[in-house]
Amino acid sequence: MNEKIKVGLIGTGRIGKIHLDNLLKKFTDIQLKTVVDIKFDDDLKKLAQVSKGMDLSNDSEEIFEDPEIKAVIVASSTDTHVKFITEAVTHHKHIFCEKPIDVNVDRIKNTLKVVQDSGMNLMIGFNRRFDPNFDRLHELVKSGHVGIPQIIKITSRDPSPPPIEYIKVSGGIFLDMTIHDWDMARFQALSEVEEIFANGAALIDPEIGKAGDIDTAIAVLKFENGAMGLIDNSRQAVYGYDQRLEVFGSKGCLIADNAASNTVRMYTTECIQSDKIPYFFLDRYLQSYANELRYFFDCLQQGKPPKPDGEDGLKAVLIALAAQKSFKEKRPVKISEVAP
Amino acid sequence: MNEKIKVGLIGTGRIGKIHLDNLLKKFTDIQLKTVVDIKFDDDLKKLAQVSKGMDLSNDSEEIFEDPEIKAVIVASSTDTHVKFITEAVTHHKHIFCEKPIDVNVDRIKNTLKVVQDSGMNLMIGFNRRFDPNFDRLHELVKSGHVGIPQIIKITSRDPSPPPIEYIKVSGGIFLDMTIHDWDMARFQALSEVEEIFANGAALIDPEIGKAGDIDTAIAVLKFENGAMGLIDNSRQAVYGYDQRLEVFGSKGCLIADNAASNTVRMYTTECIQSDKIPYFFLDRYLQSYANELRYFFDCLQQGKPPKPDGEDGLKAVLIALAAQKSFKEKRPVKISEVAP
Amino acid sequence: MNEKIKVGLIGTGRIGKIHLDNLLKKFTDIQLKTVVDIKFDDDLKKLAQVSKGMDLSNDSEEIFEDPEIKAVIVASSTDTHVKFITEAVTHHKHIFCEKPIDVNVDRIKNTLKVVQDSGMNLMIGFNRRFDPNFDRLHELVKSGHVGIPQIIKITSRDPSPPPIEYIKVSGGIFLDMTIHDWDMARFQALSEVEEIFANGAALIDPEIGKAGDIDTAIAVLKFENGAMGLIDNSRQAVYGYDQRLEVFGSKGCLIADNAASNTVRMYTTECIQSDKIPYFFLDRYLQSYANELRYFFDCLQQGKPPKPDGEDGLKAVLIALAAQKSFKEKRPVKISEVAP
Amino acid sequence: MNEKIKVGLIGTGRIGKIHLDNLLKKFTDIQLKTVVDIKFDDDLKKLAQVSKGMDLSNDSEEIFEDPEIKAVIVASSTDTHVKFITEAVTHHKHIFCEKPIDVNVDRIKNTLKVVQDSGMNLMIGFNRRFDPNFDRLHELVKSGHVGIPQIIKITSRDPSPPPIEYIKVSGGIFLDMTIHDWDMARFQALSEVEEIFANGAALIDPEIGKAGDIDTAIAVLKFENGAMGLIDNSRQAVYGYDQRLEVFGSKGCLIADNAASNTVRMYTTECIQSDKIPYFFLDRYLQSYANELRYFFDCLQQGKPPKPDGEDGLKAVLIALAAQKSFKEKRPVKISEVAP
Repeated sequence: MNEKIKVGLIGTGRIGKIHLDNLLKKFTDIQLKTVVDIKFDDDLKKLAQVSKGMDLSNDSEEIFEDPEIKAVIVASSTDTHVKFITEAVTHHKHIFCEKPIDVNVDRIKNTLKVVQDSGMNLMIGFNRRFDPNFDRLHELVKSGHVGIPQIIKITSRDPSPPPIEYIKVSGGIFLDMTIHDWDMARFQALSEVEEIFANGAALIDPEIGKAGDIDTAIAVLKFENGAMGLIDNSRQAVYGYDQRLEVFGSKGCLIADNAASNTVRMYTTECIQSDKIPYFFLDRYLQSYANELRYFFDCLQQGKPPKPDGEDGLKAVLIALAAQKSFKEKRPVKISEVAP
Repeated sequence: MNEKIKVGLIGTGRIGKIHLDNLLKKFTDIQLKTVVDIKFDDDLKKLAQVSKGMDLSNDSEEIFEDPEIKAVIVASSTDTHVKFITEAVTHHKHIFCEKPIDVNVDRIKNTLKVVQDSGMNLMIGFNRRFDPNFDRLHELVKSGHVGIPQIIKITSRDPSPPPIEYIKVSGGIFLDMTIHDWDMARFQALSEVEEIFANGAALIDPEIGKAGDIDTAIAVLKFENGAMGLIDNSRQAVYGYDQRLEVFGSKGCLIADNAASNTVRMYTTECIQSDKIPYFFLDRYLQSYANELRYFFDCLQQGKPPKPDGEDGLKAVLIALAAQKSFKEKRPVKISEVAP
Repeated sequence: MNEKIKVGLIGTGRIGKIHLDNLLKKFTDIQLKTVVDIKFDDDLKKLAQVSKGMDLSNDSEEIFEDPEIKAVIVASSTDTHVKFITEAVTHHKHIFCEKPIDVNVDRIKNTLKVVQDSGMNLMIGFNRRFDPNFDRLHELVKSGHVGIPQIIKITSRDPSPPPIEYIKVSGGIFLDMTIHDWDMARFQALSEVEEIFANGAALIDPEIGKAGDIDTAIAVLKFENGAMGLIDNSRQAVYGYDQRLEVFGSKGCLIADNAASNTVRMYTTECIQSDKIPYFFLDRYLQSYANELRYFFDCLQQGKPPKPDGEDGLKAVLIALAAQKSFKEKRPVKISEVAP
Repeated sequence: MNEKIKVGLIGTGRIGKIHLDNLLKKFTDIQLKTVVDIKFDDDLKKLAQVSKGMDLSNDSEEIFEDPEIKAVIVASSTDTHVKFITEAVTHHKHIFCEKPIDVNVDRIKNTLKVVQDSGMNLMIGFNRRFDPNFDRLHELVKSGHVGIPQIIKITSRDPSPPPIEYIKVSGGIFLDMTIHDWDMARFQALSEVEEIFANGAALIDPEIGKAGDIDTAIAVLKFENGAMGLIDNSRQAVYGYDQRLEVFGSKGCLIADNAASNTVRMYTTECIQSDKIPYFFLDRYLQSYANELRYFFDCLQQGKPPKPDGEDGLKAVLIALAAQKSFKEKRPVKISEVAP
């Protein structure tokens, strides 16, 4: 048995806690040595008491200065990502960082340069690539089972809008919600986005409109290989977390439907019915969070660079910015227009 | 038992034969009295010999001058529609006419004026409205089961492209193929299209591109009520005739999947598999052709105006023209820009 | 174009009308020349007036003595089958006869002897073999796709019980309802039934019990090749006409689920729902009635003996009798015990 | 936060390891204090080194004599169950014991008497009751959604036979494999089994027949309330672990299909296909093992007796013995015939 890889975790918010749970329970070859946050809730403190070899700290230097720690998981707020990535690679640690890297293209580019020079690996947490359904679909696309992708369709709808306070600072639907879909579209099309047309409206809650955002959005992508993409988002699918994917190609079509809550169908005098789809992202994507970290550690152990990497993180942000520009200027926008 | 309604049929091409077959076999209260075409194939001649009360003629006047005939089914080529509609209503006959009415907006408008003044009814053959699946979906939308429509999605893909000779004169994909989807989108959204953005490419066959057309198309619609529509077309879905529909609303979502060829699933050491979806429009939409004529005759018998009517026929053409303009000018186009 | 095959039809009850409708509307190479019954309803009389070359008669000799008529469709009551089959073959006419041939084994055997000596063909109307779903499943079994059949499962449930008056004279559930399943089991197992154990109860309506019958039945079959069969019947599936089939074999499994009424699924805050399955046998099996006659005529035209034949008709009755004996004596019964 | 419940685990074979894994990773309010087995593999030893508060021991007395331990999980071989149950309750510890309790009815009855007198709780590990699909179906049955159960159908097929050495000592298919289905049938029918008819054959591997067992089995159950059950088993479903359930009642029908491996469907020129169902019981029933322990601990914490209990364990064995007798004597057997 090889020695365990020691890792540090920064950030214990909603996503941070998912990573922490996976690190403690799922990976017997990984040791979560240090967890850093500004403050910790009681559950975490109790957990630390019973978890051998795991310490809590308010100082990120305890991670960066620890020569035993080989990798850092960054799940803190977006505005701290660039700082922690830079510190980590400077201290010769590999990084797994939540998306987005940043909202400023120049800052992202500079950071990626620093990462590249350091020789360390940076993986970005586009967890949906690791959803067993979407991953399986991708595998079938990549192996050519449906030929050349020509139409990529993504349906991505949340069960209910986030608090209006969040919406005011989120950067807008194209950055806070569709960001996953920009990445997924590239991932499945096997080609880069060249141009985008985006549209939308506040159909669900006028408050969202007043906050300068929209709650229903669509986007049409044109890829470099000629393929086209269609994305539709809603902040409120009252029937649950609607996450579907389709790749139509020259030799066939792949469709990933929503996962079912269970397999029971009921036949009555009224209708045939089954239970609703899973309601929230934790139900639906739980497995993907474990899978992405497992893959990150596998890459470290095998010495190969993980994907999605910093470049992927940058590209998703560029598409989001082009979408915002398209929506504002009511015209199709080329990605090259927003890439300095 | 009331006397049978006597009808005339003009045109015995592909669609004309479907109507003829339905008129002879499905409706015991209707008598197909006269069938008009420039020439008839042998099967038709034999059929006429054994069909009581049905005559063949090369002269459309035999229909228009026949006072017994109450209604005319027009399935001849598009360029003759306006002429036959005008003649029919002038002779106090109701009309069922295949889509499109015409490709010229002014001509359509003038014709609709004549129809209106005559007091006769005109129904346009958007048969897909009468597909049992799409009709059922519409019924559920209309009765409010999913609330206010917010996103309408239509997938409409042919199994293989028409001959290149047809493509050269068809008016282009937005008029010859998407025409059905323009109508379906209006039908399901319960609102009128206000603006459209269309895009596409010749990804399947470069010859189609050389002929000035595309074979893969997408369109984004904005409806007057704020709802959005997404349509994707391909001239070549190698796995069969892919016809799907989705209406997402404030209270739920309706999805009409492809019809299955049969209900058999096979489980093997390789996979779970079932037979392909129906390959062509006759397999898939056969029932809709019978249903639309049945409904047309029911309206005649009950004295109520049938839908889709001439206005619906005009609107689908306007959307098609706006789509062409959008594709050409690479920008969203308002319907008002193409409506004189 | 060859001359039309002229046929006679005896019996215009529920099933007779289905055949009549198919003969008039579906087969352009067949002429229904004479229809015989004791009396005819008004609709039939009117239909005869408008149908070229079709006569009504109260005398079956008009069919048997007509040298032009090549084949007879017998859809009269069971007690007349033997008589009409005998007359038909004596007059050198082929026969399509509804099931069961008779309820008396000796009488069936004698009749089959007469048929065999005549050189005429006899086909028995087990229409479900011609259901597109079950036929496709059979084709896959026969071509070896799932290896050697080991378990055959049939679910066959009516939406509501027949009138109690019918139940009193029907011969019991194993003869009036399961008769289809006995034939289907043999058809799909590719082997003969050797032994049967049957059980059941009157769970739905005590009146059915008082009439000496049951309304809920199960049967376990043992086939000569070692395979096993499970059949379950109910006279009242409140959710519709439940007709399913499964063949489990050494290399895989085939499942034919119920046909859907349409493809629409509705997602709401409550559940995911779709419309009920077709409610009655005419909705579900309409196609199978046309298919079986088409196949019968194809066999005549190609000079090959049709299946299911008289032997198949006999075997289904033998299994039914063994099932009755098993249920009465509460033990497994071999088919050889009821075959004289 | 209450103090953790301390538990002991006896047996670290295949099922024991599943429980161990769940105890360590899933339940933060439970402390696995002592694990007992005759010997431990290396992985377990390493696991013990890193697991705070968990000891390994070769002596079960370390569990029984430990006053801190409130509950014992027994996952050792069947012949040790009675001994450990007796010891546990004598030491005032609650028991979760794997099925079957024993293969001897008198011994089971005596043990249940001891348990009852002790006031301790005994739960039997029929994990499939806790499968999310079957549990949901049961919930719908119990709440009356489909009325009175009339037909219960269970399909339970393993992907491949166990080693022939295991089959020689397993007690036969009705005890080693169908045991789960006997319990499930009672659980879903909401009624007790009164009579059984069982049949089967060695169709897959003649060696299984030589070992005195069968590999393909069916059983027909008659419940006290008149309902009927049909069970079919195969030791080799080459396409995966086939686990399905159906309850047909007076007001509707519930069907739990196999769980899908993922949601991807692929449409090609050949067919529509999806990936195989999960291949083995760990993939399919993983969740059920965690759920049953969670429920056991919830019962302890709430002071209510858990189900399935010893009586349920006894009843499943009685049905198995009646099935064996039925198969041997080729007749339906009443449960009362095997219950002393």
